[in-house]
Amino acid sequence: MSDHIVKSYDRDLEALGRRIAEMGGVAEKMLAEAMDALSGFNVDLAHRVVSSDPRLDALQREIEENAILTIARRQPLAVDLRECIAAIRISGDIERVGDLAKNIAKRTLKIVSEARVPRAIVGLKSMHEIAAMQLKDALDAYALRDTERARAVWQNDSDLDALEDSVFRDLLTFMMEDPRNISFCTHLLFCSKNLERIGDHTTNISETVVYLVTGEAMPTERPKSRVADFGKDEAAQ
Amino acid sequence: MSDHIVKSYDRDLEALGRRIAEMGGVAEKMLAEAMDALSGFNVDLAHRVVSSDPRLDALQREIEENAILTIARRQPLAVDLRECIAAIRISGDIERVGDLAKNIAKRTLKIVSEARVPRAIVGLKSMHEIAAMQLKDALDAYALRDTERARAVWQNDSDLDALEDSVFRDLLTFMMEDPRNISFCTHLLFCSKNLERIGDHTTNISETVVYLVTGEAMPTERPKSRVADFGKDEAAQ
Repeated sequence: MSDHIVKSYDRDLEALGRRIAEMGGVAEKMLAEAMDALSGFNVDLAHRVVSSDPRLDALQREIEENAILTIARRQPLAVDLRECIAAIRISGDIERVGDLAKNIAKRTLKIVSEARVPRAIVGLKSMHEIAAMQLKDALDAYALRDTERARAVWQNDSDLDALEDSVFRDLLTFMMEDPRNISFCTHLLFCSKNLERIGDHTTNISETVVYLVTGEAMPTERPKSRVADFGKDEAAQ
Repeated sequence: MSDHIVKSYDRDLEALGRRIAEMGGVAEKMLAEAMDALSGFNVDLAHRVVSSDPRLDALQREIEENAILTIARRQPLAVDLRECIAAIRISGDIERVGDLAKNIAKRTLKIVSEARVPRAIVGLKSMHEIAAMQLKDALDAYALRDTERARAVWQNDSDLDALEDSVFRDLLTFMMEDPRNISFCTHLLFCSKNLERIGDHTTNISETVVYLVTGEAMPTERPKSRVADFGKDEAAQ
């Protein structure tokens, strides 16, 4: 290919990477603001998070279209093809992270008038810290094409799952203490599940990074801390 | 293109459609069996559903790879390109339907020893009937390239959302009646959320069918019955 065409092709691939980084930044902000809104019972902030979601959807569709057009026009091979595939997959995971942050914000709007059991939110804040770090590390792993960082995210996911178990047990306790806590705590239960699922998407992103760099798929079973407990009677999933 | 190449190309596109139909069948079966397992407290059946999931993941990856290779090799335009894009998107939605069915089965394994409040499952069965019909109709809409059927699925999603609201209220009532119902009912709450999300994926599939046939995207806001209630204090999402 002529020099001009090669440079144009490189620019296409670089543009994909920049768009992913932009999407990642929007999702990170949505998550941080959703959790601020939840812990501060901040209705305005919650509304702002919900209204950010369409922008993320539009970015995801744009990235998917650009990646597919690049495949159709350039017929890339090997790592260049994987760049396009990775952009499609990662943009999908980031879009769902934003969706989950939006759902946390919508829950805040439900519970803001019930403001019970503030200490029940402590466990969620801990989950959020881990989930936010996992998201940042997964996005960094992609930007740097760093498989070590990606594998670390994959490994750390079990911390989030373990924390979700303990949050579940705490919320159950609050609900059993006082029936007036039940409605509030069920919304927090859904928030904890949303945070755990955000963690799952960060491991998806990490698996895609490893695939992108090495051409190999990672094992499909991630290290769920509860795999060993499969089938046992357990209070939490 | 020579006749031979055109036929080979058509076969590639037809194969994508058949694989989607196969995936759809697996997901439909997983959902039916997960709900049978839940209402019958059937541990063996629940385990079988969970072990079906890797097959669905493998099918999804295969379809995605074949679609992308077809794009790279044939450089399709217009509706043929949309066939490949549709296959990628729909296989992703079907894979997540299977995942949600698997999650319902895993919840069954959690609650099987607690078998309380059988009447709490009635609402879930009603949700399942709608979700299963939506899934079948969405897959039929794709197989027949039928935009009317697709739009009907999109419209009917609000029925499922309304049912989820009433199931939420019922489960809250059971929990407040007796603290010993709380753990059991929280698991059913998650199941109802899983069924509602399956409904969301059937509307995604329907939007993709309309895009496939017409080249136009549908409005991004589906007819959620609760849009009008956004921001009000409501017990359910």
